[in-house]
Amino acid sequence: MAEWQVYLNGAFVDQDEARVSIFDRGFNGGDGIYEATRTFGHKLFRLPEHLDRLYRSLSYVRIDCGLSPDQMETISRQVVERNLPLLPEDEDVALWHVITRGERYPSANRAPTVAIYCFPIEFARFARSYVEGIILVTPATRRIPPQCLEAKAKITNKMNHAMAVFEAKQADPRAIPLMLDLDGNLTETDTTNFFFVSGGKLCTPMARNVLGGITRQALFELASDMGLEVVEGNFTPYDVYTADEAFLSGTSGSIQPVCSLNGADLGGAVPGPVTLRLMRAWNDMVGIDCVAQALGHLGDNESKDLLARWENSLAA
Amino acid sequence: MAEWQVYLNGAFVDQDEARVSIFDRGFNGGDGIYEATRTFGHKLFRLPEHLDRLYRSLSYVRIDCGLSPDQMETISRQVVERNLPLLPEDEDVALWHVITRGERYPSANRAPTVAIYCFPIEFARFARSYVEGIILVTPATRRIPPQCLEAKAKITNKMNHAMAVFEAKQADPRAIPLMLDLDGNLTETDTTNFFFVSGGKLCTPMARNVLGGITRQALFELASDMGLEVVEGNFTPYDVYTADEAFLSGTSGSIQPVCSLNGADLGGAVPGPVTLRLMRAWNDMVGIDCVAQALGHLGDNESKDLLARWENSLAA
Amino acid sequence: MAEWQVYLNGAFVDQDEARVSIFDRGFNGGDGIYEATRTFGHKLFRLPEHLDRLYRSLSYVRIDCGLSPDQMETISRQVVERNLPLLPEDEDVALWHVITRGERYPSANRAPTVAIYCFPIEFARFARSYVEGIILVTPATRRIPPQCLEAKAKITNKMNHAMAVFEAKQADPRAIPLMLDLDGNLTETDTTNFFFVSGGKLCTPMARNVLGGITRQALFELASDMGLEVVEGNFTPYDVYTADEAFLSGTSGSIQPVCSLNGADLGGAVPGPVTLRLMRAWNDMVGIDCVAQALGHLGDNESKDLLARWENSLAA
Amino acid sequence: MAEWQVYLNGAFVDQDEARVSIFDRGFNGGDGIYEATRTFGHKLFRLPEHLDRLYRSLSYVRIDCGLSPDQMETISRQVVERNLPLLPEDEDVALWHVITRGERYPSANRAPTVAIYCFPIEFARFARSYVEGIILVTPATRRIPPQCLEAKAKITNKMNHAMAVFEAKQADPRAIPLMLDLDGNLTETDTTNFFFVSGGKLCTPMARNVLGGITRQALFELASDMGLEVVEGNFTPYDVYTADEAFLSGTSGSIQPVCSLNGADLGGAVPGPVTLRLMRAWNDMVGIDCVAQALGHLGDNESKDLLARWENSLAA
Amino acid sequence: MAEWQVYLNGAFVDQDEARVSIFDRGFNGGDGIYEATRTFGHKLFRLPEHLDRLYRSLSYVRIDCGLSPDQMETISRQVVERNLPLLPEDEDVALWHVITRGERYPSANRAPTVAIYCFPIEFARFARSYVEGIILVTPATRRIPPQCLEAKAKITNKMNHAMAVFEAKQADPRAIPLMLDLDGNLTETDTTNFFFVSGGKLCTPMARNVLGGITRQALFELASDMGLEVVEGNFTPYDVYTADEAFLSGTSGSIQPVCSLNGADLGGAVPGPVTLRLMRAWNDMVGIDCVAQALGHLGDNESKDLLARWENSLAA
Amino acid sequence: MAEWQVYLNGAFVDQDEARVSIFDRGFNGGDGIYEATRTFGHKLFRLPEHLDRLYRSLSYVRIDCGLSPDQMETISRQVVERNLPLLPEDEDVALWHVITRGERYPSANRAPTVAIYCFPIEFARFARSYVEGIILVTPATRRIPPQCLEAKAKITNKMNHAMAVFEAKQADPRAIPLMLDLDGNLTETDTTNFFFVSGGKLCTPMARNVLGGITRQALFELASDMGLEVVEGNFTPYDVYTADEAFLSGTSGSIQPVCSLNGADLGGAVPGPVTLRLMRAWNDMVGIDCVAQALGHLGDNESKDLLARWENSLAA
Repeated sequence: MAEWQVYLNGAFVDQDEARVSIFDRGFNGGDGIYEATRTFGHKLFRLPEHLDRLYRSLSYVRIDCGLSPDQMETISRQVVERNLPLLPEDEDVALWHVITRGERYPSANRAPTVAIYCFPIEFARFARSYVEGIILVTPATRRIPPQCLEAKAKITNKMNHAMAVFEAKQADPRAIPLMLDLDGNLTETDTTNFFFVSGGKLCTPMARNVLGGITRQALFELASDMGLEVVEGNFTPYDVYTADEAFLSGTSGSIQPVCSLNGADLGGAVPGPVTLRLMRAWNDMVGIDCVAQALGHLGDNESKDLLARWENSLAA
Repeated sequence: MAEWQVYLNGAFVDQDEARVSIFDRGFNGGDGIYEATRTFGHKLFRLPEHLDRLYRSLSYVRIDCGLSPDQMETISRQVVERNLPLLPEDEDVALWHVITRGERYPSANRAPTVAIYCFPIEFARFARSYVEGIILVTPATRRIPPQCLEAKAKITNKMNHAMAVFEAKQADPRAIPLMLDLDGNLTETDTTNFFFVSGGKLCTPMARNVLGGITRQALFELASDMGLEVVEGNFTPYDVYTADEAFLSGTSGSIQPVCSLNGADLGGAVPGPVTLRLMRAWNDMVGIDCVAQALGHLGDNESKDLLARWENSLAA
Repeated sequence: MAEWQVYLNGAFVDQDEARVSIFDRGFNGGDGIYEATRTFGHKLFRLPEHLDRLYRSLSYVRIDCGLSPDQMETISRQVVERNLPLLPEDEDVALWHVITRGERYPSANRAPTVAIYCFPIEFARFARSYVEGIILVTPATRRIPPQCLEAKAKITNKMNHAMAVFEAKQADPRAIPLMLDLDGNLTETDTTNFFFVSGGKLCTPMARNVLGGITRQALFELASDMGLEVVEGNFTPYDVYTADEAFLSGTSGSIQPVCSLNGADLGGAVPGPVTLRLMRAWNDMVGIDCVAQALGHLGDNESKDLLARWENSLAA
Repeated sequence: MAEWQVYLNGAFVDQDEARVSIFDRGFNGGDGIYEATRTFGHKLFRLPEHLDRLYRSLSYVRIDCGLSPDQMETISRQVVERNLPLLPEDEDVALWHVITRGERYPSANRAPTVAIYCFPIEFARFARSYVEGIILVTPATRRIPPQCLEAKAKITNKMNHAMAVFEAKQADPRAIPLMLDLDGNLTETDTTNFFFVSGGKLCTPMARNVLGGITRQALFELASDMGLEVVEGNFTPYDVYTADEAFLSGTSGSIQPVCSLNGADLGGAVPGPVTLRLMRAWNDMVGIDCVAQALGHLGDNESKDLLARWENSLAA
Repeated sequence: MAEWQVYLNGAFVDQDEARVSIFDRGFNGGDGIYEATRTFGHKLFRLPEHLDRLYRSLSYVRIDCGLSPDQMETISRQVVERNLPLLPEDEDVALWHVITRGERYPSANRAPTVAIYCFPIEFARFARSYVEGIILVTPATRRIPPQCLEAKAKITNKMNHAMAVFEAKQADPRAIPLMLDLDGNLTETDTTNFFFVSGGKLCTPMARNVLGGITRQALFELASDMGLEVVEGNFTPYDVYTADEAFLSGTSGSIQPVCSLNGADLGGAVPGPVTLRLMRAWNDMVGIDCVAQALGHLGDNESKDLLARWENSLAA
Repeated sequence: MAEWQVYLNGAFVDQDEARVSIFDRGFNGGDGIYEATRTFGHKLFRLPEHLDRLYRSLSYVRIDCGLSPDQMETISRQVVERNLPLLPEDEDVALWHVITRGERYPSANRAPTVAIYCFPIEFARFARSYVEGIILVTPATRRIPPQCLEAKAKITNKMNHAMAVFEAKQADPRAIPLMLDLDGNLTETDTTNFFFVSGGKLCTPMARNVLGGITRQALFELASDMGLEVVEGNFTPYDVYTADEAFLSGTSGSIQPVCSLNGADLGGAVPGPVTLRLMRAWNDMVGIDCVAQALGHLGDNESKDLLARWENSLAA
């Protein structure tokens, strides 16, 4: 049986053979950046926007990856295309780029390490959240401020997020940390942006302290199409406790409705009506029903029940 | 000719074969910790203290490395011993531990990655500083505060330090960043602790915002033996501009005198008299003249001149 | 059957009759201060120190309670004495003072409200913690800084603590919030001070951001008697994750050992050896075995088992 | 003569009989929330908006008051209606809601305490300010930041405001504290929102750090009707020192012009021309001349003179 | 040959005779404010706006200069007119106002010191930057926050800026410091405002932490005329590293293109296309080609080459 | 009659002739430093310590004054000696040094400006405070933090202090501002250090945020001689409200007792017993009764009464 192929420093190799030196600066000190894109119905979603962000991350950390944007796009598409034959119809992949400053020893070679790979999205890990809602927790650990390191760049320094995840998991193994900045403003979770609906407006933390999500940007466009006003601001947990609805936006999960914050139920339907409109519009845009796709990866009985609940939501 | 040996996940391998999966969490997200120890005259210096700190780092990031402290010490010593035959007499090695949360994909294997390796210290990179002094620069980038990520744990998330290094290098390719915390207090450089001498006292930033250096701790003991008062406090650049002497302390370089901060010369001899006393005591403690050793690795002419200057200092 | 007596504005009344106007400034806006003292073996512990703190709180909020310290002490002792006949031998009481700025309406009367009352300590609520350890959680909610309101004064503005408690309870209904200040330093829980043992020293957050506990002060004295060094400093969760032992100190519970922080087990015995020495010394000082007393208030079976574990600890 | 009636925990009682236990959590620790509404010409102004905010406050502090919004509105209106016969024609009332987490002892009853009462507005306390202007002082005490406790919720924890009032009163017994946040931005006074006029725009601190005033919101609507641009921003004392006009907005006093900040006269008429337009529009909206009403409650001579000045302003 | 004339405390004097007592509060403690205006083609640019800002600065520091705005404008114009005969055609002047609280000793005279003077702009100091670009450095020294002293007022307390300049000069003698505020947001340089172009929008730091530049304001108008969207926000160095173009705006230099930040080249032409459009519009507005004027003051050969490059830019 | 002599840039001149160019950098931008020393009984007190601090200030701002410390001391003593014949027996002088970066225009002369002058201390301005106590106010304006500008250096940038003085003067024309740092810790007044006595210890803000006063240092020595423990810490207004005594220390006024903070009386005698002991020791050290000297400069009747109160204090 064929193996998944990875692009590593100029060549395609079997994923089991895709290895980097223990002297790689990324492995020794997180001296690198990354990017995550996904396919919907086996088609890459907004790859150019993801690669723009990747090159901005590279500028910030001053790594010259040795590839032009066009070359990068071509290779990225090849990585997906080479592996698609291995992918069942109802699956989709996450495409990852990891680029580091290369090996520090023993060679004097200062060439960066460029790894591009894809793997099936693990829908089973988050599928239930579409129907049951995400459990959010604000951890004590604060998001690193931009005067230390930029949240806007996707750097392979994720321990700040990891510490937040440990705290959230105390409350519930499925809980997700919604991190605050040093002033107590809402920022982002470890892997997604955050939105809530209040007074008929779609609200989300300002761009200053969060990754500029591609999904987030796409949602701004969908909201604009719907005539839904978007407010980027400095928000606090109070705003969520008193919100009408809330959801996460991200590459893998698209739009995931939130059910509670710090043990306080947000009230109302999950997903809420505005969230549901956005989910519908999202599915139209990407050409598949992401929720149904994800639920399909749960065990049969579980899947059936949750799917029914999702269809009820859609029918409402 | 024999190859250097690396311990990697339970086995000794040639360093060229020591490779980790691109799916390793350390490579993808800096999800790991590290430690750096060195030999003086081919003997490991304070390995138990380094391993204590390593286990504290592991506790903080919640990685179970799967080895007891005794096993860790045994293997660590083996790594050095196996490679000593390859090491010229006048060289010494840095011993590194890198431990990550292991691979996230494709296996479900949650075993951590444990890499232990050593390599000859690159004396030529910093030897001149013993005689000419370190050029310090306070970068705009602030040290990450403990409510985001602990400076006390050695985490493979070094981009905050890397950004500071870029700023320092503007002033001079040899310049080193002396980072401030969010309140403008002095903290540490990218790889060392910082000390200065003022009013006859040895002053150094408080433990709260800095790595608890093993060299730093050893200096406290030497200072105590000499009857030199040590003050741990919240200091600012003013204190350095008006100090009598200053130096860096670290694993590779031991004690390196500082000549200037932000382009302002500190005045006086380099190294200053108190620094020189500590360097002498240090050399006595570790059993070799570290400065002479380092200077010996420069080109012949350069080496001779600088060595003469160092011997003049010692003779004064 | 006789009723418990409360001192309220100059008179002793049955506790069911002890009521204040809905126009009381304390009820309408938390415009008051409080104090909590307890008895050990039916004797008030360090009442004068508690009343000193009470008068400092009054100075800070500028309430003149209309009673001299001597009068206050006399009445306080009367409140306990009058109710002692109602108290079973194996019980002890908490004595509370609540003093507000009085009614704002309809009378023009600006006299303060002074309520002094006692009630049996609810040992069952916290008895298990002596043997099983306290579960600590650092909540996202930060302790109010002194430039907004002083932590050193006991003000009837407890909502900041209440919000922290909600967060801690997510993790476990028994969990207690260990709050951080705005810089991420450890402060206190909602009702106690915090201590930990590291490197053989007894460490506790600096007085600046915490209530100056009477129990905390007594522990300083016991530690001094034992030759145990006490360090007041700016500590962070890392210091607890890597500590040898930890405990809470407070009026009701005296010394309560901690077993975990944010889901990470502290390791070692509960209580740890230094904590145990302090608990023993505490019991000697107050003249009763507080732990045995508290465990005696649990259900019979539960009580027996836990008591046996406590006696084993003592015997070790 | 009939007594004023208060709603307390399900019943109407004479206000002198309206008392709560000294064990009430509100009295002991400020564990509650409140709301203040007023009548104009004996009609409640924007009660639904006030009750919306009340339920948001309850959500934030996690108190279930046991009444639906409709029930709450009905009872609130009854409280006013029952007492109106006692109210002279030229008076109006403030309607207060105070809801606490209930008694903590001796009953195990966890029912909240719900008190709803009204009383005549004390116009004499602030009537002069309409003509003479409010004296503002920025106190050293900073407003509590949202990461400690939300300014958006009306919590019965008013000691932060009380400390600010003490500071302001040093300058003048009539002075009002205009509080800054931790970054030095203007927020609010102890009981009102703050507005100023600069470059023809109506400026007011952002919603993040202040109570979302109902009067403030009504002013946004009036300004919009007048074509007056409103700017919500981070403003500082400099902006007030160099402003054209300023005023406070609040439930009792509606719109009160400001004459000085920290002893510096703002210059120009009091009230300024834009403030006056808003006051006129306000009076039109609520159906009475609030200023004349308030001034009518001063002593006869004082009243006449100030009323004449107010009429001159209106005539200008 | 005639001497340049200065206005000092009511009289015109030769600039060599224009002296103030060593007891002047401005000299002893920086107790004063200043303003800087310039001529283009010998005509003062937006003098009324500069004087408005001057009077706002005076209000903030509570100095009554003793002159009405009309008197101030008349005298200001006289200062320029009296000296114009001394000015070569191709030169322009900077007009400075310095107003202090006057002498503190020995006289009891509390009259302020008012000095108004002009001098030829030193084009040679910055002319090269129009073609080669400004080298920016973010210094470690942070801009003073408004809760300490307002950036909006032009106060003769420039040491904060001077410290930043020392840091920038380490990197290059021509480098200019781009200062951050305490949160790491971009603010201003020591003498100019900062703009960058990103995603087709003209971006600049919010007014809160920067001097409200008259040139900055003029640029808002030019941008509006061109249909170029202006965004005032909280930006960070990342935004500059990833920007398309950047420039400084100020009284003397008008618009100066930026070539690099912290050693990282911004990429693209210098000036960039949007900057160039604004420079063209600026020159049209002020009636002269500022760049050509400045380049004309360099040595002949240097001047010719750079002028050719500038003309090439314009021709592109 | 002879004129007072001033040292200015290398020469002694009459004080009326002592003038600097309006182009001086100190006058235009506060680009300088200063120092203030005084005589007791016509003898300079600790001049070498003052000059040490002066040279540290010069180092920080990078001005080379062109004089060696010995030359500076000689000239400083000459300034006093030349003017002593003009000084009545019961007077003493303040000796000031002001050193700026010199003129920026028209000369290319980069020589610094050095002015050294003395003048009779204005005892009448503060004499009453020795008997009546200083009225302290904490202003909203915060002390500039060291990451912007160092409080340890005496820079001629005093507007931050001046803004604080305006705020304090609202409360009382005699009131003095006790400034807080950005965290709400006590720092210093506009011209003095601050001390208080609590629990038998002498407490004062840490050196980090305050000028390192020479008087402050002398008090440490006196306290040490008396066996009085000194605590340097982060203190808050609460500590003063609950202190036993408080006083200011400074060059002109030596030790001035405090009577109130923010309108709250500190209670107890003014000066308090510990303050009085220090004042006695101070007078012994400097060889005159500073209080009697100062009171002697008030009007006759006032003087007599206050002197009697002071003598009563001493006799107690």
